[in-house]
Amino acid sequence: MGIMRLGRVEARVLDLEKSIDYYSNVIGLQLMARENGTAYFKAWDEEDHHSLILTEADHPGLAHLAFKVRYEHELDEFEKSLETYGVRVNRVSKGTRLAEGQAIRFELPTGHLVELYHEIERVGNGLKLNPDPYPDNLKGIAPPQLDHLLITGEDVQGATDLLMKVFDFHMSERIVTLDGEQLLAVWLFRTNTPHDIAILKGPNGKLHHFAFTLGSWNDILHAADVLGKNNVAFDVTPTRHGITRGTTIYFFDPSGNRNEVFSGGYIPCEDFTPVTWTEDQLGKGIFYHMRELNERFSTALT
Amino acid sequence: MGIMRLGRVEARVLDLEKSIDYYSNVIGLQLMARENGTAYFKAWDEEDHHSLILTEADHPGLAHLAFKVRYEHELDEFEKSLETYGVRVNRVSKGTRLAEGQAIRFELPTGHLVELYHEIERVGNGLKLNPDPYPDNLKGIAPPQLDHLLITGEDVQGATDLLMKVFDFHMSERIVTLDGEQLLAVWLFRTNTPHDIAILKGPNGKLHHFAFTLGSWNDILHAADVLGKNNVAFDVTPTRHGITRGTTIYFFDPSGNRNEVFSGGYIPCEDFTPVTWTEDQLGKGIFYHMRELNERFSTALT
Amino acid sequence: MGIMRLGRVEARVLDLEKSIDYYSNVIGLQLMARENGTAYFKAWDEEDHHSLILTEADHPGLAHLAFKVRYEHELDEFEKSLETYGVRVNRVSKGTRLAEGQAIRFELPTGHLVELYHEIERVGNGLKLNPDPYPDNLKGIAPPQLDHLLITGEDVQGATDLLMKVFDFHMSERIVTLDGEQLLAVWLFRTNTPHDIAILKGPNGKLHHFAFTLGSWNDILHAADVLGKNNVAFDVTPTRHGITRGTTIYFFDPSGNRNEVFSGGYIPCEDFTPVTWTEDQLGKGIFYHMRELNERFSTALT
Amino acid sequence: MGIMRLGRVEARVLDLEKSIDYYSNVIGLQLMARENGTAYFKAWDEEDHHSLILTEADHPGLAHLAFKVRYEHELDEFEKSLETYGVRVNRVSKGTRLAEGQAIRFELPTGHLVELYHEIERVGNGLKLNPDPYPDNLKGIAPPQLDHLLITGEDVQGATDLLMKVFDFHMSERIVTLDGEQLLAVWLFRTNTPHDIAILKGPNGKLHHFAFTLGSWNDILHAADVLGKNNVAFDVTPTRHGITRGTTIYFFDPSGNRNEVFSGGYIPCEDFTPVTWTEDQLGKGIFYHMRELNERFSTALT
Repeated sequence: MGIMRLGRVEARVLDLEKSIDYYSNVIGLQLMARENGTAYFKAWDEEDHHSLILTEADHPGLAHLAFKVRYEHELDEFEKSLETYGVRVNRVSKGTRLAEGQAIRFELPTGHLVELYHEIERVGNGLKLNPDPYPDNLKGIAPPQLDHLLITGEDVQGATDLLMKVFDFHMSERIVTLDGEQLLAVWLFRTNTPHDIAILKGPNGKLHHFAFTLGSWNDILHAADVLGKNNVAFDVTPTRHGITRGTTIYFFDPSGNRNEVFSGGYIPCEDFTPVTWTEDQLGKGIFYHMRELNERFSTALT
Repeated sequence: MGIMRLGRVEARVLDLEKSIDYYSNVIGLQLMARENGTAYFKAWDEEDHHSLILTEADHPGLAHLAFKVRYEHELDEFEKSLETYGVRVNRVSKGTRLAEGQAIRFELPTGHLVELYHEIERVGNGLKLNPDPYPDNLKGIAPPQLDHLLITGEDVQGATDLLMKVFDFHMSERIVTLDGEQLLAVWLFRTNTPHDIAILKGPNGKLHHFAFTLGSWNDILHAADVLGKNNVAFDVTPTRHGITRGTTIYFFDPSGNRNEVFSGGYIPCEDFTPVTWTEDQLGKGIFYHMRELNERFSTALT
Repeated sequence: MGIMRLGRVEARVLDLEKSIDYYSNVIGLQLMARENGTAYFKAWDEEDHHSLILTEADHPGLAHLAFKVRYEHELDEFEKSLETYGVRVNRVSKGTRLAEGQAIRFELPTGHLVELYHEIERVGNGLKLNPDPYPDNLKGIAPPQLDHLLITGEDVQGATDLLMKVFDFHMSERIVTLDGEQLLAVWLFRTNTPHDIAILKGPNGKLHHFAFTLGSWNDILHAADVLGKNNVAFDVTPTRHGITRGTTIYFFDPSGNRNEVFSGGYIPCEDFTPVTWTEDQLGKGIFYHMRELNERFSTALT
Repeated sequence: MGIMRLGRVEARVLDLEKSIDYYSNVIGLQLMARENGTAYFKAWDEEDHHSLILTEADHPGLAHLAFKVRYEHELDEFEKSLETYGVRVNRVSKGTRLAEGQAIRFELPTGHLVELYHEIERVGNGLKLNPDPYPDNLKGIAPPQLDHLLITGEDVQGATDLLMKVFDFHMSERIVTLDGEQLLAVWLFRTNTPHDIAILKGPNGKLHHFAFTLGSWNDILHAADVLGKNNVAFDVTPTRHGITRGTTIYFFDPSGNRNEVFSGGYIPCEDFTPVTWTEDQLGKGIFYHMRELNERFSTALT
């Protein structure tokens, strides 16, 4: 029971045409549908109709993020839990967006809109009986699935408490001030990947990045080659995170939203002891090799 | 709530001395304790006191397997669920084995002894504040953790039903007869890895293999090099499974128990659609490259 | 001056149509031309018009192998050296095969026809000014180039002497009888790869395999996936050679000619000390992991 | 005949003790000998006594570089060729440095001291009869061998001409001005690796970096982890060069000399068509992913 995964991200983009080209041909997602100023994408190994929604707007950023729950009836239960916790909840009607059932919607203490949903059209990953391990004709980077996102806000502690207490998220890693008093960043998981959502101290309501899963450090190199060939703007070329131990690339979509491809990391369970970093080791925690942040890390937010 | 993972495997071995040498220096586990005819090991990234117990005996095989649950009080709850399901349950007292709390014990329809437990001494993975991604001085293959096991039995369907209904295991893959009527093998997961336990039609109470996690296809090559250098008997050299998509090596410990190192595979959630294989494609399902089983696959059981 | 590389292999195939399909779509070579019962292929990163010639025949095998020399005038010089050495030399006229200049032809003591040539139409690898590291739209395994071949014959010593004395080949590895008296197999290089040609004791005039270069152990996995997907007959799935240290797959083309993809190994220079293996360690030398030969190794020759 | 490889590099270091620790434990070379202010190292797979000499001095940089020739008598021949070419040659007596025979010494038009030698004590790589592919107990990055170096000077064309005309170096890549008139950088090879020496327009007599070979992109990650763990100063974290297609890390030894680990790239022969880059694409040529140089690239010279 409960949240299964980060099910979808809705990102605002400046030029839908250019963005569709980028997410289709460079990232290599499948364009599932398009209507008005909105486009719907899925990664090849996902079974749901979409995991990324692009909506044309005059500024980039995160329109909403949504977690998929295991059962439809959990919407009612989480609505009550949230209200008990003191969070106001709205209903999103079925059909508000393409292929989706109803959802409940609330705001995190960091100002981000979050939805919970169960129902969404199931389209499958295209692999059948006695399947090969991956389909032919993948394009671009071709990640199998959406992985996690990182958002910024003032009240990291408040958002963390809500996610852990109401939704049973677990903490994999955190950055604290040298005196240990203040939470500067936190990595939270529901599944056995190192994070489904992470929160960094910073301006409210902002998106730091959303990330797609890759299978190996070799896929990271391939992804970097695809990005280089397509003249995509890099933030950080292939490296390892200290936090999560995963390997990574940060780069920007045509609207300036930061994307990540992420591979590896440990497989935590609910009894995982959170890893603690002190703020003086922030650089090493984020980029284990270079051991310092570039200026963009804290300023390029959308 | 519920089962978090395959927490430990107790294997019978013929010569404890040789087995300790093998699991310490070739597999690269940490010998945590030894008393009487029993040795306790953990993999480097595990936090619990042990995940592998070796017990000297006159024939190899699986003494028991155990799942770790999130809360101690779940032992009582699962005891009731099991009894309601018609399964007899015994209590294992705290201190029966080193560093362990109490457990409940029952038999699968396939004749394997299964324990559930929560309490076990926590020793940590040795990484501290602001940790490096892995410790120095790892030896041998050095997998970070125990991954899954494969057992054989006559009543695959019965064992599957019990695991899914009582413990909320989910099915990732299955092999069925051509007419679709009979379940020949099944892969089950609780976590988001492709399997915690798999069951293959065959003689009751037997062990096919237990497996350790590796991080990449490159680690698989390194493992094969270590095995080659140490003259370990291979069953199957590096290849890919069709089932789970993971990469693998099968090999034998000094007592003839089959070990596996396993890397990769997808990250399933509870809404994952099980993949179906028909028995005529069994070879491709197990070994995607060679597409046929060697004779040992179904006969080398302990 | 002298031989630069194994420039081309002419293989006999049973069914040209099926063979063209296999070498184009599974191996991923570029079909450059086709006339009468012959097809010409190049690998994507090769600049010469072709490196593989397929000729339809009623039995498979090696029609000839050819080394490319640096200068045209070396044909005359090597003709003299060969005749001085006691080897009869024939001239092959320009235009005997498509896109080729003249060549000289002789027979190795093992009964294989060898040509030396310099002139061949240059077509380039398709990468231009400020090139990307590899082209788009590669198909199948897509090796960048032909690597080496392994032939069998009775007089391993004689063929080795000729190649080393007349053409300044260097020995990287050899297998000898336990008493050290007899040469059972030899690996020879001109370039700084571990081998351009290898010779194994066996029936005269036979082909054991010819091999294409791959860039990494990850490319080896990708190649195995392509072969599995296309139901190609494997001889040996991914493993490491003790000899050369390279990683490898052996498999068969539709006519039964053994192909290899090969990656890695050391970078020898002319002062490299040959590595010696004794025949009792032949298994480990050929397949470092499994440490034994399958029966096909010495019998599946074409 | 001729130059076989970049045989050794003599680097000036500020603090010999710290440098010995770094090259032994971080790079993982073998300290072969130490006398007065000089230390001698070899990489594990090299057979010669040393390939790196560290000499304590009050400023870092390149003391000399040396190419190994195949035969001793070539020293006389190259002495004559150099003098005919108009280059003054000195003899370095046997025993000037440890384990070395005599050498000839000259200055490149870029002001760098170059030696040619054949004789040097042979110590082997420690692998014996029927060897495993690599020894146990490697430390740090543990590259198998020295690979190449990059120097800077005003007269790139002059140095290139000398190396190509007198020593039969071949050009793999070059950077030219937009009008194609001036050579800004050149990559030269004798072996079949993409470069033994490269020359970049810049101040005379300076060292840009010297590089060690690694086997794969995975070894590059391991190297970056070792560097991160040891707090080594990075110039550039793992990425791909457009030029040579190789993967790379740039970093600094304790004296500020830039080191590189390099993996991959193509296997050129003497008929390789040089790849041309125009100066406006310099960033892409050097760092294919980020596609721009950091400021250090042209200023951190020793």
